[in-house]
Amino acid sequence: MQVQGSAATEVQALVRQEVDAYLAERAKREAERTKKIALISTKGTLDMAYPPLILATTAAALGWDAAIFFTFYGLNIIHRQKQTKLRVAPLGNPAMPMPVPNLIGAIPGMTSIGTSVMRSMFKSHGVASIDDLLEAAVASGVRLMPCAMTMDVFGYKTTDFMDGAEAPCGAATFLDWASDADVSLFI
Amino acid sequence: MQVQGSAATEVQALVRQEVDAYLAERAKREAERTKKIALISTKGTLDMAYPPLILATTAAALGWDAAIFFTFYGLNIIHRQKQTKLRVAPLGNPAMPMPVPNLIGAIPGMTSIGTSVMRSMFKSHGVASIDDLLEAAVASGVRLMPCAMTMDVFGYKTTDFMDGAEAPCGAATFLDWASDADVSLFI
Amino acid sequence: MQVQGSAATEVQALVRQEVDAYLAERAKREAERTKKIALISTKGTLDMAYPPLILATTAAALGWDAAIFFTFYGLNIIHRQKQTKLRVAPLGNPAMPMPVPNLIGAIPGMTSIGTSVMRSMFKSHGVASIDDLLEAAVASGVRLMPCAMTMDVFGYKTTDFMDGAEAPCGAATFLDWASDADVSLFI
Repeated sequence: MQVQGSAATEVQALVRQEVDAYLAERAKREAERTKKIALISTKGTLDMAYPPLILATTAAALGWDAAIFFTFYGLNIIHRQKQTKLRVAPLGNPAMPMPVPNLIGAIPGMTSIGTSVMRSMFKSHGVASIDDLLEAAVASGVRLMPCAMTMDVFGYKTTDFMDGAEAPCGAATFLDWASDADVSLFI
Repeated sequence: MQVQGSAATEVQALVRQEVDAYLAERAKREAERTKKIALISTKGTLDMAYPPLILATTAAALGWDAAIFFTFYGLNIIHRQKQTKLRVAPLGNPAMPMPVPNLIGAIPGMTSIGTSVMRSMFKSHGVASIDDLLEAAVASGVRLMPCAMTMDVFGYKTTDFMDGAEAPCGAATFLDWASDADVSLFI
Repeated sequence: MQVQGSAATEVQALVRQEVDAYLAERAKREAERTKKIALISTKGTLDMAYPPLILATTAAALGWDAAIFFTFYGLNIIHRQKQTKLRVAPLGNPAMPMPVPNLIGAIPGMTSIGTSVMRSMFKSHGVASIDDLLEAAVASGVRLMPCAMTMDVFGYKTTDFMDGAEAPCGAATFLDWASDADVSLFI
């Protein structure tokens, strides 16, 4: 017996219909797949502590999986002693809302003043503090991954980091996680 | 009646052939799909204003969809008053082509001099100015998205921004757009 | 002859089975596909020379294709004369492990001291030097792409760059390569 003529045509129609249904199902599963954001946080200044935390918590609120790999100065953000003292220097950044001449910016105490000004600008406009954002990050399951190599070089210990931080890991672990992320950003 | 023996073999061959053709069609559609680049611009210095604009306009010229989310100091780039005064401080960056000792860099006027030098270096080598790049960005449909939160904190109003800038939006709007981008970069 | 009744059911089952097998094969090929990382290196300081090189060589060690597009100050990293003199200024970065008051940081010689301290911190903890990382990058096939526009503006020639650097190219070439990368980062 052979499938040919009108039978072949019917088989072809059936195949197309089945493949269509199948691929539609797959596309639906893909669209429903949980999105992923992979962030690298390398700056430990007050201003650059906001972007990774705002992006990660916003993504988590949208239902995405989120992870932040803290490396270099970024480790300060999850460091118990340092995270409450993140500062911003009004120096070498002529783009600040109220730029300060560099000769003034270099005067002792200007970093403290600049930090206070920024902190109060954010607070008075109802923006969450770094503390609040870190708490929200942990509560919403954002992975906080400390870079083992930087810890070693800077002399940080696991116990230096806030509750909720994961065990130290390397770039390979982060890249493995980031490899199927929808958005990856180096901050 | 049953489809078996040689009929089953023929059905199988037909199925494979149809699935092949279908998946090839899908792959072609995927390859022809418009590419997307999602940029976050956070720096408001003259040097770091170039990368988001060059990348976005280059992508647009290649037929990609492009969007830039301007946040923190990056908002200066689309700010009518500030965009013409983007500066670069020859301070704390020993990697500049002609590095300046920090004690010299801190002298009043050195930021202006450094800015003039960089501006003329770019101009004399035929690189488009920031103005030109912004014009090209608007003309080629690059989305210019101002961060609502930063505007609020820094006290910027919608009318402060150049024509072509979109209505202010938040990180969630940007992430939604970036979620299926082919390239995402934080600048 | 028509394929109908139980025959149609059998064809349907056969189709589903074939489509399943085919899509599983495709998914396997996709999973086995070589991963890709596309990096843009824009900073030429000692600290920010590490991230692109560590990420690229780690990715290469994991079997990924990797490319770094060197632009702006990042070009220093592959510049024969400048790569051995990458420095870090203890100025305007209150997040350094041992922050230096800006007035002290501005004193002549402090950039050299800060650089020596950082270099020895990395060395004493067994972290590869920039030289070693560049050698590993070339050996493992990491593409080193110099930005033609920056070369022109900064007055760098092709012969200024280390062996292994590719011919100068533009943002379009990089974007084309990055368009199907799994991870893209701007450093």
